[in-house]
Amino acid sequence: MALRDAAAQGHSVAGATAYVTLEPCSHHGRTGPCCDALIAAGIKKVVASIADPNPLVAGQGFARLRAAGVEVEVGPGAAESRELNIGFFSRMVRKTPWVRMKVAASLDGKTALDNGASQWITSDTARADGHAWRARASAVLTGIGTVLQDNPRLDVRLVDTPRQPHLVVVDSRLDTPLDANLFIPGRTLYIYTAEQNAEKKASLEARGATVIYLPGICGKVDLPAMLHDLAHREVNELHVEAGHKLNGSLIREGLVDEFLVYLAPKLIGQGSGMANFGPITALSQAVELEFRSAEQLGPDLRIVARVRGRDTF
Amino acid sequence: MALRDAAAQGHSVAGATAYVTLEPCSHHGRTGPCCDALIAAGIKKVVASIADPNPLVAGQGFARLRAAGVEVEVGPGAAESRELNIGFFSRMVRKTPWVRMKVAASLDGKTALDNGASQWITSDTARADGHAWRARASAVLTGIGTVLQDNPRLDVRLVDTPRQPHLVVVDSRLDTPLDANLFIPGRTLYIYTAEQNAEKKASLEARGATVIYLPGICGKVDLPAMLHDLAHREVNELHVEAGHKLNGSLIREGLVDEFLVYLAPKLIGQGSGMANFGPITALSQAVELEFRSAEQLGPDLRIVARVRGRDTF
Repeated sequence: MALRDAAAQGHSVAGATAYVTLEPCSHHGRTGPCCDALIAAGIKKVVASIADPNPLVAGQGFARLRAAGVEVEVGPGAAESRELNIGFFSRMVRKTPWVRMKVAASLDGKTALDNGASQWITSDTARADGHAWRARASAVLTGIGTVLQDNPRLDVRLVDTPRQPHLVVVDSRLDTPLDANLFIPGRTLYIYTAEQNAEKKASLEARGATVIYLPGICGKVDLPAMLHDLAHREVNELHVEAGHKLNGSLIREGLVDEFLVYLAPKLIGQGSGMANFGPITALSQAVELEFRSAEQLGPDLRIVARVRGRDTF
Repeated sequence: MALRDAAAQGHSVAGATAYVTLEPCSHHGRTGPCCDALIAAGIKKVVASIADPNPLVAGQGFARLRAAGVEVEVGPGAAESRELNIGFFSRMVRKTPWVRMKVAASLDGKTALDNGASQWITSDTARADGHAWRARASAVLTGIGTVLQDNPRLDVRLVDTPRQPHLVVVDSRLDTPLDANLFIPGRTLYIYTAEQNAEKKASLEARGATVIYLPGICGKVDLPAMLHDLAHREVNELHVEAGHKLNGSLIREGLVDEFLVYLAPKLIGQGSGMANFGPITALSQAVELEFRSAEQLGPDLRIVARVRGRDTF
């Protein structure tokens, strides 16, 4: 795109240095090989932050550039570039998406009242920010509980986006109502289930869903297998917006990498928590995180925390 | 103290300008009138942020300075100076201490495991910071539940302090064990109770406590009356470190002004929350706060939030 833009503006890039976050690809993916485009444009030197972990590339991009006489430097900004693409690195290296769980809660950690009310704990500003995080994800994941309770769309509306993330629903018994708001024409929708029911499957697929049977134990969906399947479907970052039950299951099974927590300046007292897991019997069994940032966002706080050690892959 | 220090160092302050946060006092309190000291030292001008709300002063300090020919300017930094002394302003204006509730919790708002374990959710750094907040308070308040569960000292140990805050225990049935760690020689200890039991009272008072009978409804201590009584005892800032039950009662009765929340980078799942009140039935009934700060403190976050509108007195 940069080369095309330069050409469109009448600039020659012959003899120029190109700075790229990731090793230019050497294979035909959604686009042609970037290496060939750089060579054809007469680029003299390529400075790349980090090698592409994709086994289809993995150094072959650099080799092809060097073979064509292009000077190659690798390394500057490697950590930052990996962060920019952490979902892609996760999928390539771990074969599973980078899982970011979004939670909106009161300062005392409540995500809904005892009567279920949860709209809206946080402010417009926080909700728009949440949509920006949805937009950067490949897919948004929720559970049937949230579908039945809130009937959400879970698309990106409050910020501009060039494309909508896919939607993933964990629906063990295929209870998604055929008139749910989440059916949006043109959006990719995956429903993972532990129930084999040809009739329900056909009805949901007639509404545009892809129904995937991945049973685990106790009539539940096999969540690790679901993540691997989503990686096969090229999901890099998976943005979770679910209730405390599915949140609890994902945490219990050690499948969450990062938390995006909005805390509203409110106390609710009794109500649903962020994630229903445990009880643990010693503090040493708590899920250990690291805070990456905490900042005020309008009246609310936004906290990003990462599960300790999850990003060392 | 400033005048004394200047004299001790051999400096004359005759003709100087003195900058003070609060109107110099005109009465004999714990010290002699500051006005007289300023006049005697030959101070030419006094710049004071704000008038003293103490009815024993309330402008008489400025009047006395002016009568002695000292120029007086009032106003610069008024809001900041009031914040510095918010407990004193609260006691003078509202006749009740400024009540700051300290909570240490996991990111998901849990203050203890289901089995009661709570030591230590937060880090050494956060605990030392908590002691600094204890040190600035006139008194620390806790409940009999915490005394029986954790047997804490609740004194200032992790930072230097010129004096220990008083300790206040809400103990409806006078269950404080005579061998509890909270009995520290020389520290002022108030035990508020709803039980008239001369024997228990005498035993506790023999251990150095002052037992105060202030019954409310349902066999509980009258908490608003307790705060007024503490104000009479010259408690400006009251630092609350209690369990979720007493926290819940104080919040339910609208007695808390500010929250000092340490959030550890942990998820606990099931356990005790910050404050047991409610259930509320609509989000509009939540306790509305305003975040004043949020910052990383070692591995933890420290959040200061104020109950909306509580500081407009």
